[in-house]
Amino acid sequence: MSVKGFKFSALEAAIKKPGRPDIGLIFSEAPAVTAGVFTTNKVKAAPVILGMERIKHGLCQAIVANSGNANACTGSQGLEDAKEVSRLVAAGLGIAEESVQVASTGVIGQTLPMERVRKAVPDLIKGVESGTLDDVARAIMTTDTFPKMEIRQCAASGTPYTIAGIAKGSGMIMPNMATMLAFIVTDVAVEPSWLKKVFSEANDASFNIISVDGDTSTNDTSLILANGMASNPMIKDGTEDAEVFRTKLCEILLVLAQQIVKDGEGATKFIKITIEGARSLADAKKGAMAVANSSLVKTAFFGQDANWGRILAAIGYSGADMDADRADLFFDDVQMAKDGIFAGGNAEELGSEILRKKEFSVTVDLKLGNGKATVYTSDLTYDYVRINADYRT
Amino acid sequence: MSVKGFKFSALEAAIKKPGRPDIGLIFSEAPAVTAGVFTTNKVKAAPVILGMERIKHGLCQAIVANSGNANACTGSQGLEDAKEVSRLVAAGLGIAEESVQVASTGVIGQTLPMERVRKAVPDLIKGVESGTLDDVARAIMTTDTFPKMEIRQCAASGTPYTIAGIAKGSGMIMPNMATMLAFIVTDVAVEPSWLKKVFSEANDASFNIISVDGDTSTNDTSLILANGMASNPMIKDGTEDAEVFRTKLCEILLVLAQQIVKDGEGATKFIKITIEGARSLADAKKGAMAVANSSLVKTAFFGQDANWGRILAAIGYSGADMDADRADLFFDDVQMAKDGIFAGGNAEELGSEILRKKEFSVTVDLKLGNGKATVYTSDLTYDYVRINADYRT
Repeated sequence: MSVKGFKFSALEAAIKKPGRPDIGLIFSEAPAVTAGVFTTNKVKAAPVILGMERIKHGLCQAIVANSGNANACTGSQGLEDAKEVSRLVAAGLGIAEESVQVASTGVIGQTLPMERVRKAVPDLIKGVESGTLDDVARAIMTTDTFPKMEIRQCAASGTPYTIAGIAKGSGMIMPNMATMLAFIVTDVAVEPSWLKKVFSEANDASFNIISVDGDTSTNDTSLILANGMASNPMIKDGTEDAEVFRTKLCEILLVLAQQIVKDGEGATKFIKITIEGARSLADAKKGAMAVANSSLVKTAFFGQDANWGRILAAIGYSGADMDADRADLFFDDVQMAKDGIFAGGNAEELGSEILRKKEFSVTVDLKLGNGKATVYTSDLTYDYVRINADYRT
Repeated sequence: MSVKGFKFSALEAAIKKPGRPDIGLIFSEAPAVTAGVFTTNKVKAAPVILGMERIKHGLCQAIVANSGNANACTGSQGLEDAKEVSRLVAAGLGIAEESVQVASTGVIGQTLPMERVRKAVPDLIKGVESGTLDDVARAIMTTDTFPKMEIRQCAASGTPYTIAGIAKGSGMIMPNMATMLAFIVTDVAVEPSWLKKVFSEANDASFNIISVDGDTSTNDTSLILANGMASNPMIKDGTEDAEVFRTKLCEILLVLAQQIVKDGEGATKFIKITIEGARSLADAKKGAMAVANSSLVKTAFFGQDANWGRILAAIGYSGADMDADRADLFFDDVQMAKDGIFAGGNAEELGSEILRKKEFSVTVDLKLGNGKATVYTSDLTYDYVRINADYRT
């Protein structure tokens, strides 16, 4: 896989502890058009504060990202540290400091071990001659159990180009945004203002419809860099090329988002929750998200217990309009509830069968209107508790 | 303990399975003034639908409550069953059917085993000659590990009276209301309209400031019966007697609410979360509730990990106004964060010490205003997952 003009590097800086790569670099030989989506949490990590400022310039040439330390709740020192990291990287690459984006993920409330970071940067920069995007995907992992990457080859007016994306989860996964970093690189030439719009929409339809634990992180950052080195005629809104790009970008982001859920902390199940027949789209989203975040629903999924009543109860307190005596509920294509009550027959046996699968869908028809929304989630398991009880140790 | 004119009974009807008492009866010899608070969930169990209708009459003479089956998501059959239970009890006691309240807790989505209930009612009624309130408290337990009861002796203008309350938790515990049943009985004579008001306030200051798992149940019911048999001069709003009653009633409800949290499913910790210095009371409540419901915060408590950053992050996404660079955070009296960053010194060691306690407090000062709110919560543990993964088996 190569995306024209992009180079990658990753290595071990022992930011939290030694034994794994924990700092990565994405470098574009030419300044790239950029767009970003950042956490809505009022407690924003230092690199997020810096990144939100720098994204306004519209250009980016490098992303430096570390795991092991979130550089969040670190005040002015944290901001100084994030700036210094970007300064060191910019100097090493010979680019403008303002064109470097910094991202961090890991423990909150501790300042970066800057001595180790300073020591690592020169080798990180040398590494761009030999590294891969996969190396960076591995370096940003925290409790992730596998790197997340997705690539598409496309063409714009006959000129081939590539879009590649990486992401990390895997706790604190809740929309606006999930606890996640996602970096998308493409060599396509694309109109900057439209890129911003389509990237925001693609995030809404992917990272913002997943939930692992309902916690919104301080560090969520999703960035796209488009350096135009494929030399295609610039993609503009309203064209067929734009539709192709939009579709492929959305595919990549949705695959990455689903990978994050599948690798949710301790997750053993991947569940697609769809609410349809809601009074409005907003109601459908509220209902689906309440189900996805219900500890009682998620533990029942873990227990492979076809406890459909908990699902209706979650919609009932979600704030969505609902007539409890009308809702139908399905596990895959097995109807568990009809008009709000048990569907009868052998639904219990068939439903239990489905819950033993690793992936299944839950569909609830509220029969009140046309609102429909889907959310992806995981189960709540012993391992989720274990991972998060011991996270800092 | 006795509350004049009240009689109690409980026995085993094997509603879910044999081996424990699962149906209880509270009977007042005289019709009692009553008030009630019910779940805000749009999916309401049959006895809740019935109870909300009957509470309008303002009088109640008996409460029949069962565990093992919630009679929720059971449609018109469920409503017929709840009515039949009340009819059987009313006939046995020789009172009006409309003066019987029914309450259920347990598995959702299965109809009541009416044959077993019908068989049990005659013995249940005979039992009122010898039963106790404690018996009823035991009969309404589901995953509760201990019965919850609290009693106060008081006097109104020199006439002694008693208030006694029982409650059950212990999953699906989230305000408006917690998943809970609470029944308060008193022999005091009290103005009906004021009782309604003060009971609603007392619920807001107790059962509505606790959270175990953020799920709001289909069955929450909190009832008070005041039969006036203490023969005191009727308590009226604005009097000293009213203040005494209000205080004692609030004490009982708060103790019961705290017992529910302490007995939260799988709980090993009892945590008092206070947000102060918020821009408004609403902001303080939002912040405290977000902390109380954060899976990441609750697993850190279980792991005895002084991960204060997750607490600030939870307030950051709660919707409450917040300046991340101003918040102070304390575990008991140990300051962990000052102006949004680590307080330094030996706070980590002292904070970890506090998290090893079974009970501790978390206080966050947002330094933006005078809004202050407290919420009680528990930790998220392996046992919570185990209990809820296997609940219906």
